[in-house]
Amino acid sequence: MFGRIDHIGVAVDDLDGAIALYSERFGMREQHRETIEAFDVEAVLLEVGEGHVELLKPLSSESGIGKFLERNGPGLHHVAYQTDDIDSALEQVKAAGLDLIDKEPRTGIRGSRVAFLHPKSTGGVLTELVEPAH
Amino acid sequence: MFGRIDHIGVAVDDLDGAIALYSERFGMREQHRETIEAFDVEAVLLEVGEGHVELLKPLSSESGIGKFLERNGPGLHHVAYQTDDIDSALEQVKAAGLDLIDKEPRTGIRGSRVAFLHPKSTGGVLTELVEPAH
Repeated sequence: MFGRIDHIGVAVDDLDGAIALYSERFGMREQHRETIEAFDVEAVLLEVGEGHVELLKPLSSESGIGKFLERNGPGLHHVAYQTDDIDSALEQVKAAGLDLIDKEPRTGIRGSRVAFLHPKSTGGVLTELVEPAH
Repeated sequence: MFGRIDHIGVAVDDLDGAIALYSERFGMREQHRETIEAFDVEAVLLEVGEGHVELLKPLSSESGIGKFLERNGPGLHHVAYQTDDIDSALEQVKAAGLDLIDKEPRTGIRGSRVAFLHPKSTGGVLTELVEPAH
């Protein structure tokens, strides 16, 4: 069902500091930057192998990432698995009885289609499915 | 410096339930199981592309994972990046002034050599370097 770990999502309060860490110290290339309105975040993708680190800085304290930061501080926020067919993957997880945050895919970074599973169904791990734009 | 995301580490209290989630529902093959004395955990690796999900169940409440579970409940614990040369990678992160939990590599799962960076240097993300056994 999943091809690989697509990315880890990291909640940050200091975006420039986080970019410096991952690019200068860890040598990951900054690949993409985007304001994702649907999630109310500024997002930066850095490349590591075929996967990515996705840095997420909230644009408001009301956003999901804003609330996460207030509760937990900066750190690991979610993991995303890549799929070629998110509609079929969502059907499978629905059929398995997992709780979904997104019953239908929505638009994520770089025109991908994404859906989040609820962490109460996934052992506390906020889990995202990603079908990259073709 | 890093070839790819090697794995995400997930703290679990119900190991069998977590294996069922990742293998039966997400279709990841269980690849390896090991008691890692140095970390006082039972660990299970499931395959996803070239990477892994590493499930970690504490063998005592005094272990790092045991304390994490008590504080946070089950969920994302760390991310690990693969390197071909952990000695060189550790020198680079030391030279960059990052704080290390492990100043020298120690033995991790499947005979790998691993070292953890301190989350206070890495934006709250517990970060592991892994050089797989050759």
